[in-house]
Amino acid sequence: VKLTLVLFDGFTALDVIGGYESLARLPGVEVEVAGPRRGIVAADTRALGLPATVALGDVKATDILYVPGGPGVAKAQADAGFLARLRALDATSTWTVGICNGVLLLGAAGLLKGRLATTNFFAREALRQLGATVVPERFVRADKYVTGAGVSASIDTGLFLCGLIGGDAAMRAIGLGIEYFPAPPYAEKRPEDIAEPLRQLVAAFDATEGAAQLERRPLFDAV
Amino acid sequence: VKLTLVLFDGFTALDVIGGYESLARLPGVEVEVAGPRRGIVAADTRALGLPATVALGDVKATDILYVPGGPGVAKAQADAGFLARLRALDATSTWTVGICNGVLLLGAAGLLKGRLATTNFFAREALRQLGATVVPERFVRADKYVTGAGVSASIDTGLFLCGLIGGDAAMRAIGLGIEYFPAPPYAEKRPEDIAEPLRQLVAAFDATEGAAQLERRPLFDAV
Repeated sequence: VKLTLVLFDGFTALDVIGGYESLARLPGVEVEVAGPRRGIVAADTRALGLPATVALGDVKATDILYVPGGPGVAKAQADAGFLARLRALDATSTWTVGICNGVLLLGAAGLLKGRLATTNFFAREALRQLGATVVPERFVRADKYVTGAGVSASIDTGLFLCGLIGGDAAMRAIGLGIEYFPAPPYAEKRPEDIAEPLRQLVAAFDATEGAAQLERRPLFDAV
Repeated sequence: VKLTLVLFDGFTALDVIGGYESLARLPGVEVEVAGPRRGIVAADTRALGLPATVALGDVKATDILYVPGGPGVAKAQADAGFLARLRALDATSTWTVGICNGVLLLGAAGLLKGRLATTNFFAREALRQLGATVVPERFVRADKYVTGAGVSASIDTGLFLCGLIGGDAAMRAIGLGIEYFPAPPYAEKRPEDIAEPLRQLVAAFDATEGAAQLERRPLFDAV
């Protein structure tokens, strides 16, 4: 079982690693990291990268096609050759996975028309416009297409797919292996619960002394 | 504010990326990836690596010292020069972070004696023997030492530290940015709830037809 992780300039690292960390632990899975070319592909922060072991153009087929998101999606989405590559590999895959706003790339490749899909909270409308039926879920399956919400949802989505491929025991064993018993240091359960209150909180925070101590830069530039 | 991510051969990728993804989004944080030498350091699966941008020996000081875990910990823990490096950098840090069984490295460096700390479920006894007071928490702070449980606990721990450094608004904004509203595809809340039942589940699964379709390899080799 070959898992192909697709990298593009400006991907978000956790979008990739969250799913990789569970799927790579499934018995029989071999991981391939595909980039524009062999070599290091820069993540969105520009402070970190991941080495691609193969050029995407050299990948002829795969079993699990895995497409992360990140600020680089905007540019990748305008690259007809890249979208054609995704379409060609999707024609060979058993499963095709999209994470975060990377789901827009599957949509732009024409793969999600009329299908249930989820994506980053901030990308839902854009995904609708690409013909998907968007649901506000952490992960969802439609035929062989498994899509996940933003960034860290790659973990839930990866484990969900582990369950589909390997069954409940394998999924739970891997969940234990990566110790995924989350306990965020805040109470919110959904982005809907926080997006608007947060804008107010950030505005209030900006007026405090603490804000002056922090060199401000946009907190949402990655989504 | 300099964040130094320490890599060693056989680290677990999510241990690093889970914390990086939130901390790198804190205003003013600059990320440095330190390895045995500049160049790619192999993760535990051998299918993926991360490029170190600096040799650990060339790092003279840092603000946030971040040590992940992985199967490579056993070897790193026996490397007196490596532990001395961690000790020297800890003497310069504002915060020192250990994740998963990487907390054992801080313990072996003598930094956690009599301090509250958490670690991977399977590493608790070993951490006790290094003099820490082990608590079964997802993350815990003792003075400047912030420790996290296994692998994916790096996310909770990173966000917790974001809150300590940047305050509640920044933590929640970053939580929204990485969309950390987890929803694992199973019900367990703690490794304690699953470890023993899971051994039985895996044994039962091994007796099924499904098991024969999977090339079996140890599911726990990463912890």
